[in-house]
Amino acid sequence: MDGCPKNMFHHCSYRVKVLVGEEKYEIVADESLSLLQNLIKSGIPVDNLCGGRGVCGKCAVRAIEGSFSPPTEVEKRWMNILGPNIRLSCQARVLSDAVIELKKMAKVAEGKILTWGVKKETPLRPLVSFQRVKVKPPTLEDQKGDLERLLNVSGGEHYDPLILKDISYLLRESNFEVSLVRYYDEVVDLIPANRDFRILGAAVDVGTTTVVVYLYDLLTGENLGVESAYNEQLRFGEDVISRVEYARRGRDNVEDLRKAVINTINKLIESVSQRIGVDNACIYDMVCAGNTTMLALLLGNDCYYGSIAPYPPPFTSSVRVKARDLGVKINPRGYVRTVPSISMYVGGDIVADIIASRLHEYEGNAALIDLGTNGEIVIKTGEDLFLATSCAAGPALEGYGVRDGMRAVKGAIESVVIDETGRSYYRVIGNTKPEGICGSGIIEAIAWMRIRGIIDEAGKIRKGVSEFVKEDNEGLKFVIVPANASATSREIVLTQKDIRMIQLAKAAIYAALSTLTRVAGLELHVLERIFIAGAFGNYLDIFSAQVLGMLPDIPQEKFSFIGNGSIAGASMMLLSKNFAEEAQAIAKRVKSVELNLIKDFQSEFVKATYIPHMEKERFKNVLNKIKQLTGLM
Amino acid sequence: MDGCPKNMFHHCSYRVKVLVGEEKYEIVADESLSLLQNLIKSGIPVDNLCGGRGVCGKCAVRAIEGSFSPPTEVEKRWMNILGPNIRLSCQARVLSDAVIELKKMAKVAEGKILTWGVKKETPLRPLVSFQRVKVKPPTLEDQKGDLERLLNVSGGEHYDPLILKDISYLLRESNFEVSLVRYYDEVVDLIPANRDFRILGAAVDVGTTTVVVYLYDLLTGENLGVESAYNEQLRFGEDVISRVEYARRGRDNVEDLRKAVINTINKLIESVSQRIGVDNACIYDMVCAGNTTMLALLLGNDCYYGSIAPYPPPFTSSVRVKARDLGVKINPRGYVRTVPSISMYVGGDIVADIIASRLHEYEGNAALIDLGTNGEIVIKTGEDLFLATSCAAGPALEGYGVRDGMRAVKGAIESVVIDETGRSYYRVIGNTKPEGICGSGIIEAIAWMRIRGIIDEAGKIRKGVSEFVKEDNEGLKFVIVPANASATSREIVLTQKDIRMIQLAKAAIYAALSTLTRVAGLELHVLERIFIAGAFGNYLDIFSAQVLGMLPDIPQEKFSFIGNGSIAGASMMLLSKNFAEEAQAIAKRVKSVELNLIKDFQSEFVKATYIPHMEKERFKNVLNKIKQLTGLM
Repeated sequence: MDGCPKNMFHHCSYRVKVLVGEEKYEIVADESLSLLQNLIKSGIPVDNLCGGRGVCGKCAVRAIEGSFSPPTEVEKRWMNILGPNIRLSCQARVLSDAVIELKKMAKVAEGKILTWGVKKETPLRPLVSFQRVKVKPPTLEDQKGDLERLLNVSGGEHYDPLILKDISYLLRESNFEVSLVRYYDEVVDLIPANRDFRILGAAVDVGTTTVVVYLYDLLTGENLGVESAYNEQLRFGEDVISRVEYARRGRDNVEDLRKAVINTINKLIESVSQRIGVDNACIYDMVCAGNTTMLALLLGNDCYYGSIAPYPPPFTSSVRVKARDLGVKINPRGYVRTVPSISMYVGGDIVADIIASRLHEYEGNAALIDLGTNGEIVIKTGEDLFLATSCAAGPALEGYGVRDGMRAVKGAIESVVIDETGRSYYRVIGNTKPEGICGSGIIEAIAWMRIRGIIDEAGKIRKGVSEFVKEDNEGLKFVIVPANASATSREIVLTQKDIRMIQLAKAAIYAALSTLTRVAGLELHVLERIFIAGAFGNYLDIFSAQVLGMLPDIPQEKFSFIGNGSIAGASMMLLSKNFAEEAQAIAKRVKSVELNLIKDFQSEFVKATYIPHMEKERFKNVLNKIKQLTGLM
Repeated sequence: MDGCPKNMFHHCSYRVKVLVGEEKYEIVADESLSLLQNLIKSGIPVDNLCGGRGVCGKCAVRAIEGSFSPPTEVEKRWMNILGPNIRLSCQARVLSDAVIELKKMAKVAEGKILTWGVKKETPLRPLVSFQRVKVKPPTLEDQKGDLERLLNVSGGEHYDPLILKDISYLLRESNFEVSLVRYYDEVVDLIPANRDFRILGAAVDVGTTTVVVYLYDLLTGENLGVESAYNEQLRFGEDVISRVEYARRGRDNVEDLRKAVINTINKLIESVSQRIGVDNACIYDMVCAGNTTMLALLLGNDCYYGSIAPYPPPFTSSVRVKARDLGVKINPRGYVRTVPSISMYVGGDIVADIIASRLHEYEGNAALIDLGTNGEIVIKTGEDLFLATSCAAGPALEGYGVRDGMRAVKGAIESVVIDETGRSYYRVIGNTKPEGICGSGIIEAIAWMRIRGIIDEAGKIRKGVSEFVKEDNEGLKFVIVPANASATSREIVLTQKDIRMIQLAKAAIYAALSTLTRVAGLELHVLERIFIAGAFGNYLDIFSAQVLGMLPDIPQEKFSFIGNGSIAGASMMLLSKNFAEEAQAIAKRVKSVELNLIKDFQSEFVKATYIPHMEKERFKNVLNKIKQLTGLM
């Protein structure tokens, strides 16, 4: 059927095939409604912020087959940016049977769960194993000890002496048939054979600002749950430097910091265990990724000497410690181990990123950027040169220290566009009234403030340019949500100070990337692949990040998201010894570069504080897109 | 000079050589004074209780050369028992130059310190060692971690992860020159090379009633101090059975018991460390001997199943556990290890006794008796048959549960004789007024009550036989110290109930020895050597113990004291790996015998409750000596 007679009461309908990743759907689309309305009516949620006004560009689809209505004026601007076959579904209508592609369905999740790309073929080879044994009961003629009896059949000699507490009772309860739980070759638990049991493990990303816990079933590899929270160490300092400064002022202070992070981890473990209904004593292994300072503080080392030249880390290898020695509330006979680090400023989180992204297996020139309180950059050249560095971005990208900033949890604005009048359209995690704005939302908001001319290229808010620019005793601010629309009945704003913090963060990241690329003898445009890792991972809008000048002006398809690579790599190490061994090898292979020793790094940083950059020619394509979107500039 | 003219103003003097062990002294002795008076005047302290009345027999010396005054009537009685050349120095006078031998000088010690016979040639091979290393400081070109730097020069890979807390600080404080302390191959500490340090170890006898700690310098082998206290577990039950009963009633109860003994050990460690002025963090190794139940409770196992047939112990091997896991206040990175056990009822204390006595190297037929809350017996025959058993003696032999009983500390009556009127002569530890009576004193007092006819052969106090026999609402009692002579202004007595408890204890020991000897196919009189170990060790008066019927009626010279063999063996294991390995081998070699399964054991026990025994012919020599001493019977 191609074309249909119209009358007042009848609208023509067409069959539209919708490809979403590997899935295929078919819907019946009414010619008189926008494609967006048809999709939503048919139960296919599509991202959109501006309510169909063609402002946000989030509802874009690829037209593969069929006829569509001609582009509207507003749509044309986006097509210049997004490509010729990309249509805004809020503007386009179908005029025939058609095939379209939607990048992904909008999440209707309650909270924001970062996904990551552990390859499906990851071999399940955890350090924890179990063995079912039948122990010979004692007789008057054979009065051997319970322990000796057990070790006799199990054929090992290593055991955690704390199993002696319950060994006698458990052997009798189970009629001498038990499952031995082993960590490597050490018996760490025995469980009556007639009792159900699970063997779980946890991967932890010990971020400077945010701590994330993933819980796994080590017998099946299944991910059972996720939980995240701000690192309680924040109350002692927002960044690594201020925490080391605090730690240095006394032994008790180091203990404060150590307890704060352990406490954070324990609360997360408890909360995820309770939610999915498992006993946290079933967790026998925990792999912690984090920067070198975070891992050192976890073990009670103040890292002070690492903070002064020549910046020696306290340790870089994978340290293994009994859970009870750290006070971590998993099985006390289990272990906590750290992901190995590269140097004081390139830590286990980056090794985990590499493991997760498989950067070391990439054959061309590639980079990895980990966006967090510290930004870390790794460059791998075709010749197998492996360089890494770190820069201080601060906690603002994770929403911390920004006046209305918050973590990416229910109530956070995670995505924003601003129309030509300065009015914001946004999406809130959990579909509630907004309480604040998280990292991905902040980046988009500032990018759009720049697109709409609300801030200038120096990041300065332009007074009087919009009714949403206001002033209070702390200076100018931009209102994203008016008081009557927020969950707190207070305005949600970005202040001049917030914007300055983000400028410093993004400049640090861009300058680190461009400088390290130069040290590797490359130019940015020869990078064939850029892996983006970090706390807000997949939710980062590349275009906004380029408008901001945080990411370089290279084609969007060269960027790959690995999500929270730190937790992904830690998870892979948890699930397979292979990756644990690989991590040790990688940690030794990567060379750490001190940016402060590199000529021109400082001026590179200063230039990068501009939005997108002081040297406009570096962001030609991006600036061109802005022009096309607005007709300005 | 032989003989000298006398006048009113001049007494003749002679030179007397006095041999004491390997030492030789020469004194000038006045003919008109007793040898005892001469010895004491010359600064040679001689044991004596009765003030020179010839009652106690403690001041005996061997006459080797020279003429002496003829024996007095009272002295003749003792000479029949002690041998023809033995004189009571309180009765004898010298009539010429002479040579005498004194077995040992009286101790003027403040407390009672048990000595033991670690052979001087014990090789010092502790598990803890140290290595001084110079670590390469980091540079901008060499940013290896502090840990990796350290392991690089030390050439090992094992370390306690808790050293990571201070590693960075300590390396800088010492300008990168440190002493590594190792436990086997594990680095457990690092100490700046410019700082004094000591490496100490502790041997502990975890007795059911009494806990003893010996502190050693592991670099020199020097014994630095000793401390003992009642086991705080006593408040949960006086013997092993009642504690296991208590433990069984709930998990918290096991923890009560575990904490009680750990607390006892910690107080002792703290007190001995403070007294000799060392930091208890210098203690890296602790070897604990004790019966199987005590060692199991130390590790939190309730031992319940070991208390019912077929009596399987929770463990018998030497268990090693981090000090921090037990809560023992030595260096938290150090270890506590147990002496291996033989069976549920023949524990690590007995293995320690064997190590200390070298019983396993004795070529003839020999026995070992450990006197404590449990009495343990080991028989070794010439054919290398090695049998061991245990019997419940109760805490009375350690002064616990006896009305005026106390430990062998300052203020305790440790030795008693009673004269024909029933009056007691005694020695008090620390030379103060007496507060109570300890095990060795109790045994001597009851033996003398039997000799003087104050109790009959059934142990019953004879009313009206002496002014020192009194009665109160709990029945008959015998007054050793009247109220006005005691430190507490209360009488020190032995009650009928006290005597009954001692009868049960001594009967258990004698019956176990005679039964086990029979099981080994031997008779008591073919034993060539009997090693006596236990809490009151060297202070036991063999003659009194024979009068009581606790020890068999065989010549005194066949008995050897090894003192507290439990702590001696633990000390030897602490000081040398050789002995630790030997202990493991011995634990496997000894066969444990269940007395309750042996025919006639029960009737043997009942007969042995008599004093000395229901079958008088078994104690012919002893009864004969009593007769000679008293002219009675």
